[in-house]
Amino acid sequence: MSQGIRDRAVEIRRTFHRYPEPSWREFLTTSRLVDELEALGVDELHVGSDVLVSESRMSVPDDAVLEDWFEKARANGAREDVLEKTKGGHTGVVAVVNKGDGPVLGLRVDIDALPRPESTDESHYPNQEGFRSENDGAMHACGHDSHMTMGLGTIEAIQQSDFSGTLKVFFQPAEEVLGGGKPMSESPLVDDVEALLAVHIGLDHPSGEVVAGSDKPLAVRQSRVTFTGESAHAGLAPNEGRNVMQAIGTAIQNLYAIPRHRDGLTRVNVGWADVGEATNVIADDGELGIEIRAETNELLDYMNEKVERTLRAAADMHDVEVETELLSIAPREDSDEAAVDAVATAAEGVEGVTSVVRRADFGASEDATYLMQAVKENGGIAAFPIIGTDHPGGHHTATFDVNEEDIFVGIDVLSGALLELETRI
Amino acid sequence: MSQGIRDRAVEIRRTFHRYPEPSWREFLTTSRLVDELEALGVDELHVGSDVLVSESRMSVPDDAVLEDWFEKARANGAREDVLEKTKGGHTGVVAVVNKGDGPVLGLRVDIDALPRPESTDESHYPNQEGFRSENDGAMHACGHDSHMTMGLGTIEAIQQSDFSGTLKVFFQPAEEVLGGGKPMSESPLVDDVEALLAVHIGLDHPSGEVVAGSDKPLAVRQSRVTFTGESAHAGLAPNEGRNVMQAIGTAIQNLYAIPRHRDGLTRVNVGWADVGEATNVIADDGELGIEIRAETNELLDYMNEKVERTLRAAADMHDVEVETELLSIAPREDSDEAAVDAVATAAEGVEGVTSVVRRADFGASEDATYLMQAVKENGGIAAFPIIGTDHPGGHHTATFDVNEEDIFVGIDVLSGALLELETRI
Amino acid sequence: MSQGIRDRAVEIRRTFHRYPEPSWREFLTTSRLVDELEALGVDELHVGSDVLVSESRMSVPDDAVLEDWFEKARANGAREDVLEKTKGGHTGVVAVVNKGDGPVLGLRVDIDALPRPESTDESHYPNQEGFRSENDGAMHACGHDSHMTMGLGTIEAIQQSDFSGTLKVFFQPAEEVLGGGKPMSESPLVDDVEALLAVHIGLDHPSGEVVAGSDKPLAVRQSRVTFTGESAHAGLAPNEGRNVMQAIGTAIQNLYAIPRHRDGLTRVNVGWADVGEATNVIADDGELGIEIRAETNELLDYMNEKVERTLRAAADMHDVEVETELLSIAPREDSDEAAVDAVATAAEGVEGVTSVVRRADFGASEDATYLMQAVKENGGIAAFPIIGTDHPGGHHTATFDVNEEDIFVGIDVLSGALLELETRI
Amino acid sequence: MSQGIRDRAVEIRRTFHRYPEPSWREFLTTSRLVDELEALGVDELHVGSDVLVSESRMSVPDDAVLEDWFEKARANGAREDVLEKTKGGHTGVVAVVNKGDGPVLGLRVDIDALPRPESTDESHYPNQEGFRSENDGAMHACGHDSHMTMGLGTIEAIQQSDFSGTLKVFFQPAEEVLGGGKPMSESPLVDDVEALLAVHIGLDHPSGEVVAGSDKPLAVRQSRVTFTGESAHAGLAPNEGRNVMQAIGTAIQNLYAIPRHRDGLTRVNVGWADVGEATNVIADDGELGIEIRAETNELLDYMNEKVERTLRAAADMHDVEVETELLSIAPREDSDEAAVDAVATAAEGVEGVTSVVRRADFGASEDATYLMQAVKENGGIAAFPIIGTDHPGGHHTATFDVNEEDIFVGIDVLSGALLELETRI
Repeated sequence: MSQGIRDRAVEIRRTFHRYPEPSWREFLTTSRLVDELEALGVDELHVGSDVLVSESRMSVPDDAVLEDWFEKARANGAREDVLEKTKGGHTGVVAVVNKGDGPVLGLRVDIDALPRPESTDESHYPNQEGFRSENDGAMHACGHDSHMTMGLGTIEAIQQSDFSGTLKVFFQPAEEVLGGGKPMSESPLVDDVEALLAVHIGLDHPSGEVVAGSDKPLAVRQSRVTFTGESAHAGLAPNEGRNVMQAIGTAIQNLYAIPRHRDGLTRVNVGWADVGEATNVIADDGELGIEIRAETNELLDYMNEKVERTLRAAADMHDVEVETELLSIAPREDSDEAAVDAVATAAEGVEGVTSVVRRADFGASEDATYLMQAVKENGGIAAFPIIGTDHPGGHHTATFDVNEEDIFVGIDVLSGALLELETRI
Repeated sequence: MSQGIRDRAVEIRRTFHRYPEPSWREFLTTSRLVDELEALGVDELHVGSDVLVSESRMSVPDDAVLEDWFEKARANGAREDVLEKTKGGHTGVVAVVNKGDGPVLGLRVDIDALPRPESTDESHYPNQEGFRSENDGAMHACGHDSHMTMGLGTIEAIQQSDFSGTLKVFFQPAEEVLGGGKPMSESPLVDDVEALLAVHIGLDHPSGEVVAGSDKPLAVRQSRVTFTGESAHAGLAPNEGRNVMQAIGTAIQNLYAIPRHRDGLTRVNVGWADVGEATNVIADDGELGIEIRAETNELLDYMNEKVERTLRAAADMHDVEVETELLSIAPREDSDEAAVDAVATAAEGVEGVTSVVRRADFGASEDATYLMQAVKENGGIAAFPIIGTDHPGGHHTATFDVNEEDIFVGIDVLSGALLELETRI
Repeated sequence: MSQGIRDRAVEIRRTFHRYPEPSWREFLTTSRLVDELEALGVDELHVGSDVLVSESRMSVPDDAVLEDWFEKARANGAREDVLEKTKGGHTGVVAVVNKGDGPVLGLRVDIDALPRPESTDESHYPNQEGFRSENDGAMHACGHDSHMTMGLGTIEAIQQSDFSGTLKVFFQPAEEVLGGGKPMSESPLVDDVEALLAVHIGLDHPSGEVVAGSDKPLAVRQSRVTFTGESAHAGLAPNEGRNVMQAIGTAIQNLYAIPRHRDGLTRVNVGWADVGEATNVIADDGELGIEIRAETNELLDYMNEKVERTLRAAADMHDVEVETELLSIAPREDSDEAAVDAVATAAEGVEGVTSVVRRADFGASEDATYLMQAVKENGGIAAFPIIGTDHPGGHHTATFDVNEEDIFVGIDVLSGALLELETRI
Repeated sequence: MSQGIRDRAVEIRRTFHRYPEPSWREFLTTSRLVDELEALGVDELHVGSDVLVSESRMSVPDDAVLEDWFEKARANGAREDVLEKTKGGHTGVVAVVNKGDGPVLGLRVDIDALPRPESTDESHYPNQEGFRSENDGAMHACGHDSHMTMGLGTIEAIQQSDFSGTLKVFFQPAEEVLGGGKPMSESPLVDDVEALLAVHIGLDHPSGEVVAGSDKPLAVRQSRVTFTGESAHAGLAPNEGRNVMQAIGTAIQNLYAIPRHRDGLTRVNVGWADVGEATNVIADDGELGIEIRAETNELLDYMNEKVERTLRAAADMHDVEVETELLSIAPREDSDEAAVDAVATAAEGVEGVTSVVRRADFGASEDATYLMQAVKENGGIAAFPIIGTDHPGGHHTATFDVNEEDIFVGIDVLSGALLELETRI
């Protein structure tokens, strides 16, 4: 990689870093991606509402919130044609490079930031170098700025290589809320992909280490549950109410008591509750935030069925209504051995790589698994490599940062792996 | 009342006291009643299965228990024709006295004893006089021996009077389990009764005091609830069970939390639970004993509906089945003013009566209310007088006893009240 | 009463109506009361922090809220000397009229409004006559504007009468949150009162009807309960949390299941809950709003002890902390017969009174009972008359209003009753 | 092994099989073991109360039950000296063979039967051969008759070998209730053991297969929990009770909701409940049977602490008392690699062994782990081999049986492994 290419990559990453946009609000981010992809001269560009199934989006913010960020993006120079395509929270891009009749390969990178402030500490590198977040209360604290840069760099590398198939790069929105993987996985653009790589930087792996395929992200499902009853004067006529508070007390008790399963680890949590309004009134509405996780997709189904049964029975018991809104969901998908081998082989030869780990547990949840699942269901294979980096603060903290050298490692590993995969499929 | 009649009444009462028989086991008691009623020369006698609707009986003991008492009655001289009629727990008698075309009046007395031992203390009068219970573990500890004697004495008094209507006396079984009132109230013999008196002795009212009409017996309903699930090895595969223990925990919590009602007092109790068998097995069956009480029949319906909803939802929540068996039930019925007035008027003139209280709260539950309800639904009236007596031990205790003089007061009040009622209807 | 006095009373009432101030925010109200009382020439005036025990105040709003209303009052012309005395939510006035060595009598009227918008309907009389609320979101929807007017009118009537004792009128703040009665009842100004009247208008009694003494306001206690635990990642390490959500589920279930009491009606409600923040985090804090009510003060103590036990055990069970903050409290106090008789006697002679009811159930809670309790504990007597009025909308609704004629009835009944009480004590 | 020795072993096993004795009732079994061990001429014999810490015994039956079996053993010819030593449920034997200054090795076999009837089916081999259980309702349905025979045979083989250390064989009572391992592990006889083998037959491993060391028996703890409150009339005065039923409902709900743990599998079960007596009485006593299991001993401690906290808080909440009685307990202990290797090496050379599995999960709980733990804490090593056998019915079923040839395999494997261990320690 030439120093020029490297300098350009660093500049691109820092610009993304300065304008972090949380889930479904990546308006300026999408616009800049389109700019860069046009500059690279990709063969096809699919933008915003063209790259995901709108109804499948989850955890989309209120219109007022979307509107705020939309106008902020416009003020910061977002292109009107892109704004038009992404309006109402339809962010993301898919870029296609056609170089021949070879296999169709895919790469998925995520693009959203987190709704948290960035450190103002002098020792924080983005601070020192002047590319700290300019969007107050938002920060690229999980490395998605690096992921986008790797995606662009990999396209350039493949363009310059003798690759003779098709490469599709999926710039996916809303990973942090696990809300964008599913709608993008349902896009027809995924259908013909024969091998897919996703990628993550860091995750407590040091610079120089590459994990060829991560496994065991817990399957996860989050939902907002709304109960509706009937209020009554608690002192005069408690019997005239249909008491949401009692339904919720019953639900909480029984949700945590869902039986453990012989086949593996399961989790359930009621993370928040917001019920009723006045001390002297029987509560007639209330909401719960519920999360389940499981070691396998089957166990997640088991937990979900039990949660639904429990909520329904708790509502019935107190004669109230209940509705569940899905907030986010991601299945467990492990890396395929064939894809892992291709990544490992490629990584061995990359400058700066000192240790290649074939497999490691992912340790958290990720909705790239939706795209992996879609590819596998169509007969393809997938792997989820991790590019190690020495990050000073932990993921999602105010002082998270990456070693920019590792972005180049990522580009080399990914492009090398794609070339390996071309020969094996 | 002549001394001869008095002596005869005391002898009858003491014989009943010596052979107490608990609910639905009053085989010898029924036989002796038939003997006495035949001796009195009543006009009609309806026995056992002819005086109640068999399917409506509640809390009938197991066949083995019934058989034991049946044979004990036979051994103690019960008549074969009566045994034939009462077999399988169909006890009780209705006696009819026809004296002309006047109104049809009714009197209800209960006949069963309690399954508890009688005191062996020297100061206990039945002990001193040699008429303590000869049926171990059973005792007339609530005065029903006196009630039967009053019933017989009242018949004799009416026969000797110038009463010109019809008198029906209902000797009702199984009051202590609130299991006999309903099936007897459904007998066609009740249909033409225009005014009904029930009677109780004692209840903390002293000798000399008569309550013309008691009110506010709490409506009550008791049931046995059976849950059925599926067992599983609790260590290896807890998820394979359908856990009755969890359903029962949920049910208990929510039953006690049924909302209080604006219209008056309600009660709920889970008195006993018997669930599962082995510590390391998911419980697949369990039973609960549930009681509800309420100030009115409408409130009892409210509580019953809530109990049923709660049980059903608790079962649904843990995917188990639930069934409810009614054990006993009695409505609330208050005394009618017209009937109360007749009793009060009669009581004023009775020797030994020093205080007439028009109305007092009953303070417990009673299934005479079923007969009162039936009479009222047919347009009739009813009252439930209490004949005070100085009882040394409380009701249902080992040293309960009555002052036998008060039995004569009872006969005079009841027969006087019936004559009053004849003139008023 | 002259037409001039009447016109003046109506004008006063309407001015109060135009500037409603919710509990503890009655800054302008207090200032106007001081103006009127000075104009009447009362003998003593005790203002704001001088009339209540500051630490006993409950449900005082946040400083920011107080500050807002404070500045609004200043802008609307509140006097600086009164603002100084009432700063920080120390509202209310006590006026004293000394006319001789006769008995010390008291009258309590409440002065706060409700935080609810007033109707903009054309048929709403205050709208037609131009005295609708000018404080958006606040309204005199419970008649306290009339009560203040009655208080002022009664002072004037007593001044003009041959009354020869002392009259103290307690203009009490924060009745709507049951937060002002207790702190004012602890003021030494109450100590020498020998007979106290409180008063309410309306409450579904029609114009022309006067209730001499209301009874059976339910004793009530409201509190905010705060649980504090420890958060943890719900997917990775649920065992590391100390889960407030589980403590709250357990508390809700068991609070509603506090046993009913043999001695009378009890109530418990968990009206609102606000727990946790994120779906995937074990909740480490949460709040509940709890209300208990009871037929007697002893039953309220019973319920409170059970609530405290339940909360403590629910917290212990999940290893979290719990604290309770009292929001409001009022005991039950019934009217004394001697005081009721004085009111009834006076009411009989008042023009416009067509029906005098000696006693009626109050039907709601009120913290005038704290002042009544204090007077009774010092050997005095108290009654709580109701002055009927045809109110178009219900209390606390947007269209509540009173018939202003009934304010004059109130003044006549109260001043007449005070004169009666003077002769009887 | 000579045919004579084999025949003798089969005869011994069948005699044990004919007289099965459940936990703590192994009076005749102990007597017969003493007979056989004396016949073998072991160097030391420790019997009954000398081989376990009496106070640490768990799940000892009632005196009446013990007495029954004690007399039955006497009637079947148990020796008086052994009866004296084992009186009151102090069963078991430890035999010591001293052959020189070499290492002290141990072997643990269990001796109790199950309280379940044996099959009367014609196809059941013990039936055909006439050695079916003669103790009605008891059966050697888990192979402990074979274990004892292996213990005796191993002693004989070691006596005849050139082994030059000390062998201690622990014939442990009450394994089926997990009640005997702990008290025997606390005997000083265990203190100097440098390497210990335990052994089990079958467990779904076929004849010819030997597992050198089993792992991962779940740690387990069972207890009986007793709640004591105060009864009251549920209709008249529910507030006067201290309600055990509510405490138990609360406990059940919260026990199942003990948080899952990041470090591994946990289990909790409430297997049975027996609460209260009468439907109309507030329950004043009740019992629960609780089991916890866990993947590690630390996790069992975690669960136990949570169970205790939950029970205490549930009792506090309803003002009742609670006590816990330990019924059974066993830790998890895995096999040490050094000991596994010795067993595997020995097994390779044994006639009849067709497959040697180094390690397998045990799949159930076992209290041999207490003895393994004690040896390890003293610096020793331990392994728990499984000797496969084709058993027609499952363990604990009426048709369980073993292929007697596999007993000889067991003797060869165990004695061979002990000789291997001698050389390695």
